[in-house]
This record gives sequence, structure tokens and C-alpha cells, in this order.
Amino acid sequence: MEDIIIKYYEEPKLNKPVLVEGLPGVGNVGKLAAEHLVSKLKAKKFASIFSKHFPPQVLIGEDGVIRLVSNDLYYYKSKKGQDLIILSGDYQGTSQEGQYDLSYEVLDILEKYGGNMIYTLGGWSVGKIIAEPRVLGAASSLEFVEKLKAAGVEFSKDEPAGGIVGAAGLLLGLGQIRDMEAACLMGETSGYFSDPRSAQTILAVLGKMLDIKIDFKELEEHAKEIDDLTSKLNEIKPPMEPSGDELKYIG
Amino acid sequence: MEDIIIKYYEEPKLNKPVLVEGLPGVGNVGKLAAEHLVSKLKAKKFASIFSKHFPPQVLIGEDGVIRLVSNDLYYYKSKKGQDLIILSGDYQGTSQEGQYDLSYEVLDILEKYGGNMIYTLGGWSVGKIIAEPRVLGAASSLEFVEKLKAAGVEFSKDEPAGGIVGAAGLLLGLGQIRDMEAACLMGETSGYFSDPRSAQTILAVLGKMLDIKIDFKELEEHAKEIDDLTSKLNEIKPPMEPSGDELKYIG
Amino acid sequence: MEDIIIKYYEEPKLNKPVLVEGLPGVGNVGKLAAEHLVSKLKAKKFASIFSKHFPPQVLIGEDGVIRLVSNDLYYYKSKKGQDLIILSGDYQGTSQEGQYDLSYEVLDILEKYGGNMIYTLGGWSVGKIIAEPRVLGAASSLEFVEKLKAAGVEFSKDEPAGGIVGAAGLLLGLGQIRDMEAACLMGETSGYFSDPRSAQTILAVLGKMLDIKIDFKELEEHAKEIDDLTSKLNEIKPPMEPSGDELKYIG
Amino acid sequence: MEDIIIKYYEEPKLNKPVLVEGLPGVGNVGKLAAEHLVSKLKAKKFASIFSKHFPPQVLIGEDGVIRLVSNDLYYYKSKKGQDLIILSGDYQGTSQEGQYDLSYEVLDILEKYGGNMIYTLGGWSVGKIIAEPRVLGAASSLEFVEKLKAAGVEFSKDEPAGGIVGAAGLLLGLGQIRDMEAACLMGETSGYFSDPRSAQTILAVLGKMLDIKIDFKELEEHAKEIDDLTSKLNEIKPPMEPSGDELKYIG
Repeated sequence: MEDIIIKYYEEPKLNKPVLVEGLPGVGNVGKLAAEHLVSKLKAKKFASIFSKHFPPQVLIGEDGVIRLVSNDLYYYKSKKGQDLIILSGDYQGTSQEGQYDLSYEVLDILEKYGGNMIYTLGGWSVGKIIAEPRVLGAASSLEFVEKLKAAGVEFSKDEPAGGIVGAAGLLLGLGQIRDMEAACLMGETSGYFSDPRSAQTILAVLGKMLDIKIDFKELEEHAKEIDDLTSKLNEIKPPMEPSGDELKYIG
Repeated sequence: MEDIIIKYYEEPKLNKPVLVEGLPGVGNVGKLAAEHLVSKLKAKKFASIFSKHFPPQVLIGEDGVIRLVSNDLYYYKSKKGQDLIILSGDYQGTSQEGQYDLSYEVLDILEKYGGNMIYTLGGWSVGKIIAEPRVLGAASSLEFVEKLKAAGVEFSKDEPAGGIVGAAGLLLGLGQIRDMEAACLMGETSGYFSDPRSAQTILAVLGKMLDIKIDFKELEEHAKEIDDLTSKLNEIKPPMEPSGDELKYIG
Repeated sequence: MEDIIIKYYEEPKLNKPVLVEGLPGVGNVGKLAAEHLVSKLKAKKFASIFSKHFPPQVLIGEDGVIRLVSNDLYYYKSKKGQDLIILSGDYQGTSQEGQYDLSYEVLDILEKYGGNMIYTLGGWSVGKIIAEPRVLGAASSLEFVEKLKAAGVEFSKDEPAGGIVGAAGLLLGLGQIRDMEAACLMGETSGYFSDPRSAQTILAVLGKMLDIKIDFKELEEHAKEIDDLTSKLNEIKPPMEPSGDELKYIG
Repeated sequence: MEDIIIKYYEEPKLNKPVLVEGLPGVGNVGKLAAEHLVSKLKAKKFASIFSKHFPPQVLIGEDGVIRLVSNDLYYYKSKKGQDLIILSGDYQGTSQEGQYDLSYEVLDILEKYGGNMIYTLGGWSVGKIIAEPRVLGAASSLEFVEKLKAAGVEFSKDEPAGGIVGAAGLLLGLGQIRDMEAACLMGETSGYFSDPRSAQTILAVLGKMLDIKIDFKELEEHAKEIDDLTSKLNEIKPPMEPSGDELKYIG
């Protein structure tokens, strides 16, 4: 078996598509954001990625029908300009080698469709609940950094200290050595639970950068539910006081 | 050395064979069922699978003769309809990548013999002893789900929660993306010991689906022995009271 | 880099050589025996095996000169009959896949030189000090088992329970599926230290099987030193009383 | 994706270049030395090595621009004799197989540029702070050992006991089997922190061997800072008294 199998459901014609990646990671921020984008833009699934680098597992739907765990590619045809390819899925690669392999393969697909720009979405764990999460950035060139700053993205010398690991980092790094433009948008998150507010914050920046309108109603409702739950928990016991030097991981 | 070596003892002519898989896993249910089927149908071993994905180990027979650990393929020529290929063996692949490789290779063999239907057999750990284990199912298509329901297989929204892992899951998932029909039959089991009653229960459903008569005498006797042992243990100490949220794994 | 690199120092002409393997393992029995054989027969090193499957390490000689860790092949040209290829070295493969790869490669070399018979040497841990260790056996065919019995090798239904793992097992198992004749000679050993007495015992059987005279003086002296040390330790504290069901591993 | 990707920024013409390796390891001695050499010789980066054998990580510069973790090759054109290729970087290979792969690839590059001599630089942990660290050596041939002795390198029967592991060892071992001349210079270091004094000591020997003048001002200043810090710590609590048999590792 090949290490990676791509199954195409459709071969769309796309205009210089921009890749937007959101896979499971800290606070599930990237995945929440990517899936919200797919849903709101009615983006269409055109390919699935199956791989030895994912767990040997099938998931079972409510109807009893199984599907092999995968990453999935969706396209969105824009009326105004560049189209999108959105990458989401069940898992990141489970090994270091697998992470490289999968990211490289995704860039091959992007290149095949004529794209050369990438946004990766992730969470940045700050170890405490944040009312108004910032969006931190990193990019493949100084020009790109400047454009992101203009859109409200913050760049901080010390954050994130260990760089960016996983797919959100590799797509940038491997993209850069393939002469693509790439940026990572990292939403601050406590990292304690799935964080729709952080996802909304990075989508707001992404929408500005890509000139796309995104409806945030579901994310806002979801965030409010979590707020309610959190404040109920706080009535019972005092909020956690993290020491500020926890291990940080960006997915 | 190739990752997988197939050694054929015979190349049978088979009529659209159905693959039945039962490898070691929870409660050893799948392996017990597959071996009972081989024994009762007098199925004939026609190939062995050796692989780097198995432990580096030989087993020693009572006569002092060794054999390398393997998975083995048996065929059964049916008088009425589709023939069977039965897969059993000493181990599942020991790595994630190995599990994918081995399952994919088995599907290659099935395809070579003209087959495109798969039943995988496994146990589903419920963490307590069950007098009348149910058979839970999952399948590659809604039509197949309906047929299984008609044969008494139960489908439950919440069970098994984490999907199906290992060979029993991968043969379904990889089969599905190769346009094969595939189902998993999971017998409820405590998971505390090798469970012949659970094996019998799934074989009863399989026999119905495949229109094959299976003699269950040995399994019944074996189950009774375990019942006797269990009730003796219960006289000494009260039965375990599991909390209901144990880790569940399906092999 | 290839996974395995073979460096030949010489390409000897050999008459149906018999492979004798002794690599590090339980009680270091196999390695001690193989190295003693090399020394007493003045066998000549003709090839070294370097591999990614060994640790990334060089060893430093007393003169400050390094050498990369390796397995090494020696030949002995017999005046009477079959020649020998002796395999010893610093390590076994560190991964399961590596163990398979390395053993398969060694069989390729044996085949290249026209050989088809293998003896692997190892220790069998019994968890206590044994005054007169037995030699246990396992072989690729019933005929070979019978020949070994005639030479004093014991075969026991329950020993060793888990079969044989590592190179000593794989060379047998992979040899068998390549239609070679293969046997493992396992010397009983406490497993607590390097055991020259156990090594001597298996070499005595091997010498009989191969019709080779082996001088045991150094092994006997070495064994006596260990006896002296052990009895001194015993004066201080009573001998260990193992429970008899320790983990057993054969290298 | 290939396991290793080499990106060339320039293809210099070099005269029998000598490879000098200094990657992260014990006391960071090798990396400190190699980076100091690059800086003082104004050596020019001509290639980067990216690989699945490195962590899936990008680092973020102070300006917000990312770069994929890598090993890097620098050249220095000497007016007097042999040119240099200096290897440094963020990580050593994270797996045993990766370490072999990367070292072998570096030797391919050295060979391509006509080089056949290697110096690897590392630290040797002695578990206590040393005022005047010695330089210990190991080499691929007795002649090379003698030359190093003449330059003040010490060779000790018992040090380092476990040989040399990692890139510093493999470049020697793999170089030796490719008929290259190779030596490792190991600076004694406590192993407790990044050790510029040890780095300076091995560079002094290397400078003598290669007939290159190296300015040590920054390393001396850096060492003095650490001395000050250490003596302040010692005022608070007594110096550690290591037992002398700590685990030793050379990077």
C-alpha cells in the first residue's frame, strides 16, 4: 500500500486557489475554524486523503455506516478573486515522518491546482481563559508579515517560543522552501476545551485577508454555551491560576 | 526483505469468495470464531503471510518443530454459492503502518480471487460478563446495514463509541474505498478472557448471512467450562462491578 | 543510505557452508560461543554488516581507533566436510523490522555461498544458577529434531514457552520458509551474567553435530572464575530463590 | 517527499574541503564551536538540509518570519590550503535510522566536493565543572591518532567508555568504511549548561590541525559570564559532588 492514497470525487477547475488548513490541535481552534468555513461557504468536498500515517481506525456514523479516518479537501469558487481549497480532517499524521509526508503531499495538490498561497489556522495555548483572544501570526516573508499586521495580527518576539509544530508549521516551512507564500494565524486559547471564540477571532482576520464575508452566528452561540458552562464551574471552585510557563503546543 | 511475504501452498479456483477475518483481539472473539469456522468447514490452508510487521518470533510445536509467526488464509468451496476465504493467525500487525499494509495486501489477494465482500469478526468489550451477548454491527453501506439488521444484528448510535480499530476496522475502511462491500460483526464480551460464547453468537449471524450451517458443539462445551469456572470464582468473591466507562477496544 | 551495507574483505570459496550464529542475548551465551568458535578455529573475518538497524555508535579501541558497530561474518574451511560461516557482532537489530531485514540478508549471503544449513546459538533463562546446564533445542523439521536428540539435545513441550525471539528465532523461521535446515541450540543459564559454562555446553553439542573438535580451556577457566565469584557472594548472602515464573527471553 | 531534501543556494568550487561538524549535543560544545568557526571565518552558507528526520517544526524569527528546522552547510575558502565545509544546525536526526541517513548524505556531499577528511566536534560529560577541560580524541586510523596526540589531544583507554554516539560518531564510522580520514575532538564539559570554554578548547586544537587562526574573544567573554554565574551559585549552595559514574553521552 502506498503511504498516502488520494481519492478524488471531482476534479474542479480552480483559479489560483489559496489553501486554508485547519486540523485537530490545541483548543481544536484550527479544525473548528476550517469546518465553520466549509459550512458557511458551502465548500464542496472533492478529495479525501487516506494514509498509513493516520490511526488504523474506522468511524461509525449514526446510521451504522463506517468511514476510514481521513483528511479531506474542499473547494470554494469565489466570485471575486482567488478560489479556496480548505483542508480539514480527523487527525494529523501520527508520526513525525508522517507529518512531513502529508504536508508535502498537500502542497503537491495545491501546486497541481495552480495555487501558491497558504493560511494555516491553529490555537496558541496561554493556559487561562481569555475574554478577547488575540491573533498571533508568523509568515514566510517580511512582506506577508506586514500585510498581516495591517489586518490586526500581532507579532511578538517571545510568542510562541518554541515555534510552530505539526501541520500548521510544516505547511509554512515546506511551502517556503517551495517558494510559496504562507502564514499561520494562531488564536489565543486556554487549551482546556474546544474553543469557538478563538476560532471566530482567526476567521475574522482570515475573512479580511481573503475579502470573504463569514457569518459567525453558530460560533458565537457555541462560545456563549461554553461561557455559561465556565461561569457555572467558577461558582463552584475558583478559576485555575496557571503558572505561566506551561508547555505550549500549536497544532 | 519485502515487508510482506506471501507463501502459497496451493492456488485454488474460487467462485467470488467472501473474506471472513478473525484475528487476535478483545476476548479473542474473532480468532476463536474464525478458527472454529476453519475446523467445522474443513477449510484448507492455501497461503501464509509472513511479515516484518509481526514480532520477530518462531513458535515451537510439541514435536520440537518451529514455525515463523504468520497470518494464514484458508479456502472453503461451497456447494451452494459463494466460496469463502478465511483469514486467521498469530498476531495483528504490531505497528499502525503494518496494520494498513497487511490489510491492504489481504484485499489484493481477495481481489485476485474475484471476491468483493468482507466480514470481519471481533469482540466488543462491555467490561462485565454477559449471559446473552448481542451482536453489534457496522457496514460499508446503508443497504448492507439493512440486511444485517434483518439477520438480528444490532446497530447502536453510541456503540462502539471510538469506532473500530485494527484489522477488523481497516479491512472495512480500505475495502470501502476499493468499492467492496464490508461488514464487521462484533460480539459483546467481558473482555476478561477468551470468550467462546461471544464467538458462537457472531458465527450464528454469519452462518445466516452466508447460508452456511455451523456445528457449535465444541464452542458450547468450551463456553460451559468457562461458566463453571466463573461461577466457582464467584462463590469465593463477589462478581466484579465495572464502572461502565472502561477503555474499549475492538480487534 | 541503504538499510544494510555489506563490506567484503575477501570472497572465499566455500563448500556448502553451515551458518553458525551467536549474537548478544540472554546470558550472552550465543555470542560467547560464537566468539570462542571463531578464536579456536582461527576462522577468518571476510565481511562486515553495517546497518541503520544498529545503534548510531562507534566503539573506540585501546589505541584510539574507532570502528562502527557491526555484525561480522567469519569463515572456516574444514578439512573433512562442510565449511562454516560464523556470525557474531556487537548488537542484534534494534527494531522488529530491522531484525527481519538483517536475518533475511544473512540468509541471502549463506545462499550465495551455497549453504542451506543453520545453527543458531542462544541462552535460555531459568532464573537460577545451574551447575550442569541442559541444551534445549528446536528445529525446522522432525528429521533434524531426531538428529539433535541423538546428540543429547533435549526437547521439552513447555520449554521455552514463548518460542524463540530475535535473530536466533528468525534465522530458523525465515530459513524454514526458504527450505533451509535450521536448528537452535539453547543453553540453560541463570541469565544474571555472561555465562561461559552454558556456552561450552552448547558448543559441545555443536562440535558433535558438525564433527569438529573444540578446545574448551578458556571457557572452563572463565566459568571457574565466575563460580568462585558466585560462591564468595553466597557466603555473604543466601542464594536467590527465584519463583520460577520469571520472564524468559532467548536471544 | 524524499526523506532528505538538500537546497543549494550556491555551488562553490572547493579545494579538497575538510568537513567540520558541530551539532547540538552534550554541553552544546560541538554546535558552539562550529558556529563560532562560521562566524570568525565568515564562512558562507551554501546549502540547507531539510528532512523528515528532524522535528516537524518551524522556528519564528524576531521579525515574525519563519524557517523550517534544518542542518546547514557553510564553506570557507582558505588562502593557504584545504578549504572547509562546516556543518551545523538545529537538531540531530531524531531517530537512529535518521542519524545514519543524514550522516551518509553529508558524506555524499563531501565526496561530491572532492573532500575526504572529517573532524567532528562534541562534548564529553564528566559531571562536574572543569577549570581546564582536556580534549579527548578518537580517529579512523592509527596515523591520525598519532597526529592528534602531537597536537595535544589526549587518548584514554577508558574514556569515553561507551564509544561515541550520534552524528559525531557516525560521520567517523561511516567515513571510515568509505575510506575517509576522520577524527572526533571531544571537549570535557560538566554537561550542565552550554559550555563555551570547552568549545574554545577543541577549536584551539582544530585551529592547530588545520593551520587556521581563530579569534576567541567572544567565547572567552561568554565563558567568563558563566564562571561569574557559577561562582554566585556556589556562594549559595555547595558545588555538586557527582559520583563519577553518571551516564555519559557524546553528541
